[in-house]
Amino acid sequence: MCLPENIRKEDSGLSTISPLDEKGKFVKIIDQNKLPRKLTYMKCRNWEQIAVAIEQLSVRGAPAIGVAAAMGLALAALHSTDKNFDDVMKTAAVRLRKTRPTAVNLFWAIDRIMRIVELDLPVEERRRLVIQEAGRMREEDIEINMKIGENGKTLIDDGDVILTHCNTGTLATVKHGTALGVIRSAWNEGKRIQVIADETRPKLQGSRLTAFELQHDGIPVTVICDNMAGHYMSLGKINKIIVGADRIVRTGHVFNKIGTYSLAVLAKHHGSIPFYVAAPISTFDMQTAHDEVIIEDRDPREVYFMPGLRSRIVPKGVPIFNPAFDKTPPELITAIITERGIIWPPFEENIKKMLET
Amino acid sequence: MCLPENIRKEDSGLSTISPLDEKGKFVKIIDQNKLPRKLTYMKCRNWEQIAVAIEQLSVRGAPAIGVAAAMGLALAALHSTDKNFDDVMKTAAVRLRKTRPTAVNLFWAIDRIMRIVELDLPVEERRRLVIQEAGRMREEDIEINMKIGENGKTLIDDGDVILTHCNTGTLATVKHGTALGVIRSAWNEGKRIQVIADETRPKLQGSRLTAFELQHDGIPVTVICDNMAGHYMSLGKINKIIVGADRIVRTGHVFNKIGTYSLAVLAKHHGSIPFYVAAPISTFDMQTAHDEVIIEDRDPREVYFMPGLRSRIVPKGVPIFNPAFDKTPPELITAIITERGIIWPPFEENIKKMLET
Repeated sequence: MCLPENIRKEDSGLSTISPLDEKGKFVKIIDQNKLPRKLTYMKCRNWEQIAVAIEQLSVRGAPAIGVAAAMGLALAALHSTDKNFDDVMKTAAVRLRKTRPTAVNLFWAIDRIMRIVELDLPVEERRRLVIQEAGRMREEDIEINMKIGENGKTLIDDGDVILTHCNTGTLATVKHGTALGVIRSAWNEGKRIQVIADETRPKLQGSRLTAFELQHDGIPVTVICDNMAGHYMSLGKINKIIVGADRIVRTGHVFNKIGTYSLAVLAKHHGSIPFYVAAPISTFDMQTAHDEVIIEDRDPREVYFMPGLRSRIVPKGVPIFNPAFDKTPPELITAIITERGIIWPPFEENIKKMLET
Repeated sequence: MCLPENIRKEDSGLSTISPLDEKGKFVKIIDQNKLPRKLTYMKCRNWEQIAVAIEQLSVRGAPAIGVAAAMGLALAALHSTDKNFDDVMKTAAVRLRKTRPTAVNLFWAIDRIMRIVELDLPVEERRRLVIQEAGRMREEDIEINMKIGENGKTLIDDGDVILTHCNTGTLATVKHGTALGVIRSAWNEGKRIQVIADETRPKLQGSRLTAFELQHDGIPVTVICDNMAGHYMSLGKINKIIVGADRIVRTGHVFNKIGTYSLAVLAKHHGSIPFYVAAPISTFDMQTAHDEVIIEDRDPREVYFMPGLRSRIVPKGVPIFNPAFDKTPPELITAIITERGIIWPPFEENIKKMLET
């Protein structure tokens, strides 16, 4: 096993987003665009740097971008004066909201911080509370993932070969992960499982990130191209699928990385392959109808060029489509794993119940 | 529209495999590993160079590798002496047979030439016949593709948005193509169609080759990543699928580029999307059962590294799977388009009838 030189085996505490440093000057974020070639941390010193990191996918994954945005607002609070606090916080919130449209956790995190900004308290007190809340959200994310893992591992059996898509692990959260958190918890309990990771075009989060962090933890992982998943299902070589989610609406429609929908259709076609979604409660959006959710179209250059490289793989002038997400309807989903428990069909009814608990 | 400088617009006669040059010294083959960056021709001067070109996918596509192998045998015949003719031909045939295991056209082409080698005629005569036969097979391939196009275009309607996978055009044949030949014939008849090309990981034949040659002909093409096809089907934006085939067995199981099977499952799930396969009669293998066909596993480096580049996208030490083909069962196929006509279900019965005509 060959890891980048700057990860040491004892660094089992790999964390995507650091707490604020002691002097409150910066937050350290793993630059995921550099993986798997090297593990480097970006020091983000203000909300604009966090916003750019989110836009450019240096930090990605619905839970992680929520926490990153909260840390951006903490930096904004720290760098504001008593006079401009309200203006600075609003400006930062507007900027961070514009970074990515689909994952609901981003808006959930910004709303949660902005509710503190709007409290009828002295600026100094609100600033302290904002910073505290961002730190708490970071800690909570870890706790939530651990609980998702605990709940989800009951669905995993010794000997399972589990297909996953994109990256839903430590690198998509603060630590542990959602769908990969379930796999990690099952593995930590001694279940001998194997993971098949879709490479996940165009940004290759599966081959670059999922393979990287599972290898780091010693969990067996094999990478395939996205178009190979159906073939391995037909050969009976995949017996469970677990993916994350960027937004789940009240009807149980799941918005997740492009390619998720195809996997769900393929799982259904093969009959006996359960299709699980793992996500925190903050991923649920009870307000928006499934046909109102905006699916982000990303920069065509993600498809024209290979990640991190400048050599063109599509002829100049040929248009491309590059939607970042797709929508999987509830009838293709076996269960949704959350920190509060597992939601089974009928989803509309049971999501409502789970959110009310 | 921007084409490589060394293609001129008047070069509408783009051909993947040239005839033998006047002095019989070489065959020119387009080096497809260089596309879409530049259009270059390899001069293959002997059968070994042809074999390497086939192995390394400089020439690929079932019909094209059949003709390339025939031209390799023609070069072998030309370079043999009267004394060693039989030995040279056998050695060349053995070598060429080993290049790729799945596409049946390769074996069909070699068998067809070797039947001449085994005739009870003077060496000089057999040499002449071998060279003539290879040239005839090259010409026939063009005629066959034109007929496939003529037959298939009746299935295409004005306004169709057609999804295709891999490359099945001029670059997969000598000229015109199979599945892309159908699209080309429909376009040439004035049908306004749009093509959506799967990029086709790992070797990107869709984005590099299909997009290149459709753009060259002015046929509207948009590239998507393989994992986006299901999404666009669910949005109702794809109304037909046409793919090629590397081998079709008597029961109607189609072996084609990895990812084909998933598209067929997705088409069926969406109900009203016909799934067509276009292939010459030489693609049919009436001898082998569908579960006996060897699916080629290719070099892991095709997935570890991006085409033509050395930057690793999968961490070192992480295993990958890289099957080149998958199997689509007959129940997922709407019709098979050949140069003799269109084969409809029940396939086992109707394939037999078509091959007997």
